[in-house]
Amino acid sequence: MSDKQAPQDSPPRPGELRLADDPAAAPGDASVVFIGRVRSPWTRREDCPKNMSQARERGGAGRVEVAAPFRAGLAGLERFSHVVLLTWFDRAGRDLIVQHPKHAAVARGVFALRSPVRPNPIGMHVARLEALDAAAGVLHLDAIDVLDGTPLLDIKPYFASIDAFPEAARPADDGRR
Amino acid sequence: MSDKQAPQDSPPRPGELRLADDPAAAPGDASVVFIGRVRSPWTRREDCPKNMSQARERGGAGRVEVAAPFRAGLAGLERFSHVVLLTWFDRAGRDLIVQHPKHAAVARGVFALRSPVRPNPIGMHVARLEALDAAAGVLHLDAIDVLDGTPLLDIKPYFASIDAFPEAARPADDGRR
Repeated sequence: MSDKQAPQDSPPRPGELRLADDPAAAPGDASVVFIGRVRSPWTRREDCPKNMSQARERGGAGRVEVAAPFRAGLAGLERFSHVVLLTWFDRAGRDLIVQHPKHAAVARGVFALRSPVRPNPIGMHVARLEALDAAAGVLHLDAIDVLDGTPLLDIKPYFASIDAFPEAARPADDGRR
Repeated sequence: MSDKQAPQDSPPRPGELRLADDPAAAPGDASVVFIGRVRSPWTRREDCPKNMSQARERGGAGRVEVAAPFRAGLAGLERFSHVVLLTWFDRAGRDLIVQHPKHAAVARGVFALRSPVRPNPIGMHVARLEALDAAAGVLHLDAIDVLDGTPLLDIKPYFASIDAFPEAARPADDGRR
């Protein structure tokens, strides 16, 4: 995921738009708990792959460490080839509702982007599960595209029957990857 | 998604396991804001499809209503064929870490299930975007598998290049759909 977005306290780029009320300052409608952390080779924003394709090309594997109370929840996951990870982009702003990424010709809405900067900064990543040590709470992944230490919210088994749409279309000028 | 799990205050089934500390009662590590609601034909748990395949078979379309402050974020989404929705299962318990769904032979960890009952009750749904009225904040979907009124956390464009793994494997005894 890109973490090249403008930091929260810098002015928006031309065409960008901020929410009047920053979700980061709101009381919120519900609370999440961090169930673990992602361990990745990426410690600096400028080094972090912008998406899973880039992460795979760069060749750095990833690891997930699940906190002790939640490890019983891993039973049975070893039989799936792929997992969905939901992460919390704890170093991303939340109030930029229209953004102008470097790869794009024009500014666009956050819901048409996979930017980590979003009202609820939740990342969704599909990774191959290379190995699982359920007792230690460790998942070994083929790749991961988040900064080291990123909090984990959820792990789900990936079901091709409901999650895979290889024919899905995206705009030709979307800035590939 | 299944909402046939035991309610939070009923005893677990044999083989099931509860967390010592219910995440629903914890102060939490971060807060989410509801950016809209899902509108679906399903108002009762017993009628709600257990997953997107069932929802498609049942033929009831779905709709997402995005709250006014967040509608600017929809600009550019109309050019994608599929979207990822992240929802908040507001009527699901959060403390059942090992569960025994009716379709499964044995109890298994929550992270090997797509049950709505999970430490962070976030649903992930890939839907076809049939139409978008960005000004009104309305997305028309081919189907949706959540109860009417379920809060919305995020919308992301679906990228086949990073999200589609049609070859992904799951156990043969997993209770298909």
